Amino acid sequence: MSNQKAINIAVLGATGAVGQKMIETLEDRDFPIKELKLLSSSRSAGSKITFKGTEYTVEEAKPESFEGVDIALFSAGGSISKKLAPEAVKRGALVIDNTSAYRMDPEVPLVVPEVNEADIKTNNGIIANPNCSTIQMVAALKPLEDKYGLKRVLVSTYQAVSGAGNEAVDEMNEQSKAMLNGEEYEASILPVKGDEKHFPIAFNALPQIDVFEDDGYTFEEKKMMNETKKIMHMDNLPVSATCVRLPIAVSHAESVYVEIDEEKVDVPAFKEVIASGDGVTLQDNPSEQEYPTPLSAAGKKDVFVGRIRKDPDVDNGFHMWVVSDNLLKGAAWNSVQIAEKVVKNNWL
Amino acid sequence: MSNQKAINIAVLGATGAVGQKMIETLEDRDFPIKELKLLSSSRSAGSKITFKGTEYTVEEAKPESFEGVDIALFSAGGSISKKLAPEAVKRGALVIDNTSAYRMDPEVPLVVPEVNEADIKTNNGIIANPNCSTIQMVAALKPLEDKYGLKRVLVSTYQAVSGAGNEAVDEMNEQSKAMLNGEEYEASILPVKGDEKHFPIAFNALPQIDVFEDDGYTFEEKKMMNETKKIMHMDNLPVSATCVRLPIAVSHAESVYVEIDEEKVDVPAFKEVIASGDGVTLQDNPSEQEYPTPLSAAGKKDVFVGRIRKDPDVDNGFHMWVVSDNLLKGAAWNSVQIAEKVVKNNWL
Repeated sequence: MSNQKAINIAVLGATGAVGQKMIETLEDRDFPIKELKLLSSSRSAGSKITFKGTEYTVEEAKPESFEGVDIALFSAGGSISKKLAPEAVKRGALVIDNTSAYRMDPEVPLVVPEVNEADIKTNNGIIANPNCSTIQMVAALKPLEDKYGLKRVLVSTYQAVSGAGNEAVDEMNEQSKAMLNGEEYEASILPVKGDEKHFPIAFNALPQIDVFEDDGYTFEEKKMMNETKKIMHMDNLPVSATCVRLPIAVSHAESVYVEIDEEKVDVPAFKEVIASGDGVTLQDNPSEQEYPTPLSAAGKKDVFVGRIRKDPDVDNGFHMWVVSDNLLKGAAWNSVQIAEKVVKNNWL
Repeated sequence: MSNQKAINIAVLGATGAVGQKMIETLEDRDFPIKELKLLSSSRSAGSKITFKGTEYTVEEAKPESFEGVDIALFSAGGSISKKLAPEAVKRGALVIDNTSAYRMDPEVPLVVPEVNEADIKTNNGIIANPNCSTIQMVAALKPLEDKYGLKRVLVSTYQAVSGAGNEAVDEMNEQSKAMLNGEEYEASILPVKGDEKHFPIAFNALPQIDVFEDDGYTFEEKKMMNETKKIMHMDNLPVSATCVRLPIAVSHAESVYVEIDEEKVDVPAFKEVIASGDGVTLQDNPSEQEYPTPLSAAGKKDVFVGRIRKDPDVDNGFHMWVVSDNLLKGAAWNSVQIAEKVVKNNWL
């Protein structure tokens, strides 16, 4: 990226799990930055963060913080996005928002560059970054839709606690230590900070991510179902999800079942299509016990796919196991990737 | 059970994770035992186990160990069952085998009492106890089949390490401690003892339980697919599974998707049918964050079902979250339950 016009970047939520990864990713990608502004709530303002050898002080985010900013990466929670994104846009910034605040807004493109890069262009100042568990699934679905067409999708997720922030990871670690020592540890964050009840995540599985909606689905499940349709421009694609939080620090895994719109496809052909996907790496060799796991995918940018099998009873039905770092492709890397496309295509 | 004719019981594999639970369950149920024989491999022979206040010495299992035994509960691995079950039968014992050795043998009934109790009667001396992950699923499917009929089943599992034995639980605990201290810990047991490669289970998810078959499914997945058809007497029921091992000590959870053979069923009606199932407890109230988890189900005999939802795009499609203690209903309790039915019905 170093030959591009250098631009002014702000990262809002700079001290959070995703914000930290955004800063690391901007550094790692050598993103062409003229000026970098690190922003947070008043609580975290004053923190020091080193970027390319220079120490930055995190400032409290205010409407005027966005004066002169070209691209603002938001990851400080939905209510803060609702409040500050219009202020940033008013001041000329392009907001790439990693919260759920604008994702389903028909005026806001919801983008996974490997799937719908062109949608970036028609924005009114805000581009939404999809939910982490949605991003990795649509990346794997895209080459299948292109080659075969998709008839339906069913997914059960295996999600890492870092999706609920650094404090959830701390809770998991402290609980794990306590339980290994035979001690009690009261849960106070997971499954959902601010919800009525809390349950231990250590050595457990919690079938609740985000709050419940009236139909019994959680909001996380609805995000996967609705965002997938929007990103893929397939309003009528049946997608149904079960989302589960597990004692894993980083990387979400997903058991994805797809029915494709073509008969008599065999597993080798299906694997070839997956391997051809942008940003997708096939890791699938049962005879060598080769398949992705959360630990093997952590710290990597790609979406990894393995365990591809054909349903013995449904000719067009296939299983796959999709794993990706929820903080990178699921969040920070996807946001930075959108910013790179904006710069590269002169869409600013 | 205390008014029944007292009988001679042998437990083979008495020092293993399931064997220990079998002994606890026999005690807990006050099973009418005249004589109790605890058997193991030569390696564990000599161990002391207390049953109802009396200390027993575990003996090495040999063909002659089964002289005078009425019911023998086997849980010492498939190869030992293959060798010793015929010897026990020859000596007049009824073998209830908790390994995969005889499950798919057409001469051997495969029994979950809530589903196919009557199959117990037509045995040739061996009754097979199904795979843990199969048992809890068919217990939940049975009331649905009875009321609506089943069209297809898709399942993704969240399985505890105790299914791979006590040494796998030790590996998970030691690995967890090491990782929490930032230390290395080489995996040597999971995903499958004796397979070529080993991967860490702590803070990870391993999409391999048991060895791979030629079609890319694991043997565990095939067990769920084939045993379900056999237990339910539904040779043509489409069942397809993805089995995943997780850092959970006890209780398997399952994301089960069913299509029933009736249209226009609503969620309250579906829940009522689940609640009516033998050995099944409905735990499903999203507004109160009520749903089963591995920790909440551990130590209990029932199969717990929650998170029941209707597929928004498929009228006869429903999701449910099925959790049960893999060592109890998934193994020890199901075996003891078969033994109780044998005694109660005078089928010995």
